[in-house]
Amino acid sequence: MVKVAINGYGTIGKRIADAVLKMDDMELIGVTKFTPDFSAMIASKRGIPIYTTQEKIEAFEEIGVKIAGTVEELINKSDVVIDASPGKVGEKNKTLYENNGVKAIFQGGEKAHVAEVSFSSLCNYEKAIGKKYVRVVSCNTTALCRLICTLRKNFGIKKVRVTLVRRAGDPHQIKVGPINALLPKPIKLPSHHGPDVQSVIPDVDIVTTAIVAPTTIMHLHVVNVELENHVNEDDIINVLDETSRILLIDSENMKIQGTSQVIELARDLGRKRYDLYENIIWRDSIKIVDKELWLIQAVHQEAIVVPENIDAIRAVTGIEKDPLKSITKTDEKLGVMRRL
Amino acid sequence: MVKVAINGYGTIGKRIADAVLKMDDMELIGVTKFTPDFSAMIASKRGIPIYTTQEKIEAFEEIGVKIAGTVEELINKSDVVIDASPGKVGEKNKTLYENNGVKAIFQGGEKAHVAEVSFSSLCNYEKAIGKKYVRVVSCNTTALCRLICTLRKNFGIKKVRVTLVRRAGDPHQIKVGPINALLPKPIKLPSHHGPDVQSVIPDVDIVTTAIVAPTTIMHLHVVNVELENHVNEDDIINVLDETSRILLIDSENMKIQGTSQVIELARDLGRKRYDLYENIIWRDSIKIVDKELWLIQAVHQEAIVVPENIDAIRAVTGIEKDPLKSITKTDEKLGVMRRL
Repeated sequence: MVKVAINGYGTIGKRIADAVLKMDDMELIGVTKFTPDFSAMIASKRGIPIYTTQEKIEAFEEIGVKIAGTVEELINKSDVVIDASPGKVGEKNKTLYENNGVKAIFQGGEKAHVAEVSFSSLCNYEKAIGKKYVRVVSCNTTALCRLICTLRKNFGIKKVRVTLVRRAGDPHQIKVGPINALLPKPIKLPSHHGPDVQSVIPDVDIVTTAIVAPTTIMHLHVVNVELENHVNEDDIINVLDETSRILLIDSENMKIQGTSQVIELARDLGRKRYDLYENIIWRDSIKIVDKELWLIQAVHQEAIVVPENIDAIRAVTGIEKDPLKSITKTDEKLGVMRRL
Repeated sequence: MVKVAINGYGTIGKRIADAVLKMDDMELIGVTKFTPDFSAMIASKRGIPIYTTQEKIEAFEEIGVKIAGTVEELINKSDVVIDASPGKVGEKNKTLYENNGVKAIFQGGEKAHVAEVSFSSLCNYEKAIGKKYVRVVSCNTTALCRLICTLRKNFGIKKVRVTLVRRAGDPHQIKVGPINALLPKPIKLPSHHGPDVQSVIPDVDIVTTAIVAPTTIMHLHVVNVELENHVNEDDIINVLDETSRILLIDSENMKIQGTSQVIELARDLGRKRYDLYENIIWRDSIKIVDKELWLIQAVHQEAIVVPENIDAIRAVTGIEKDPLKSITKTDEKLGVMRRL
């Protein structure tokens, strides 16, 4: 059993914690938390060991949250740390992992150079096997990598052009804007998402732009791919329909016209926290014009990287060297769907 | 086992269906659905018998949803129908229930005269025992009735003044506004919520106003109650803390500052569809100035009436004549919390 510690129990950390608890080849030995709040209270009631810094122990105990020890103590006894700190903080934590000789998996908020490999299960699982430091790329990059690697393997790709319409903040955030504007971000094109995809797939020709929209629930990607081979829509649909972590929906039969209805689907499915681990692609958006593929996908920013983090644990520890076996196991245990 | 049919499988209907499935003294014999969509697909996969009108059967079967029969067939074999139709449609359905000699529970979107009793478990459970037609009042009215009946019983009430800040639409609705405005609704004061509370508690002095705000997740009530007796904040807190279906939270220890963070709490608790059946009252909003009580509560419009519908089934069929026993049973099976 691989001993997993999670450093940072926020949006991503709490979801990975739940995911680790569902696996039978790894053990959640504890999480770190730095703000005493309802989320710590619930984790504590569920019996998840919580660690914090020496000076914060009292504040947690005042609200009835028992502390199992200090951050250092947790890191020291783990085999792998999932670093789910806010962006750029992971890099500062790296010394701690180095000093304790533990492997670490960073998130997409860190620069690529923090790790030996920028990771996406469907693209480069093998590269992470046995590595010490791996970075699971961000939600948007994870969704793009899954799609691009699948298309490239099956049809060949000449170039990729994507417009991302990004959610402005997460649902619980009350100090993030804009409330009522569309922000080209960055205005100076292109956006960082292209190079970030290249951190996983170095030789892909990709240019991206990104607009921030006043919504909290999902990102949306308008994807345009010039393929090497002549294919039709059905070829694309058949391949995507068979691909792990890609779920095709349709607007007509399902009456799903937008992201809030995609979330309603997740709620009706009984997904905890309405988490959608899958790229959600509208089947009826898929269109071929000459050799160019167009499609629209929705990305649940809070959840999509969770399966990749679980796979990364197996890769770095070497407990599973076959990508397909890890992916299948992760998906089964998490209830990730290929089709409805 | 009471045979329950649910007429209308929308926001309220699908939640009551899930609740009935959790009870051991009633049986869900089927639901009616009039639009073939993802929600029908999921219900069908879960084995919930779906009924529709003769002319719509084909459209459902085209998307792979098996139809168990017609609406009339379902109503005919039920003991109680939960009418969860859109507002005002329930009244039109009443003839169908009369013709088939079945009891019916209507929702708050109907006028009070549709039923013999306007119902709220903590106020007038006894009045509904053995009745044929009962109306569970709306989400806002349900929340106000729970609070007012509790305060009245314990402290006596002279008058109630409430400003409701209402959510504009439900999360899945994509054609409801406003996107960016506050609407006094009605502008001609007062709002209908006061008289609606009086449909349950006839002799209470209550005046309400309502503002629609661009949010989809919860309502918020600013409540001002003139009490008959001199009490202090702790008296209020102690009573509310012991009351079913009222959950006190606090902004400081829990770090819950607004409705989106209340919903995040529900997500972390693992509530299906993040449903909150409880009045969520900020403990630190509770304030006594002279004999006037002030407090702020949040109301999850999609879910709060679910427990009352379950109680109403027990009351009209007479399978449980003790309100407390029904309330306790409902709350246990649904996981309704008194405190965190």
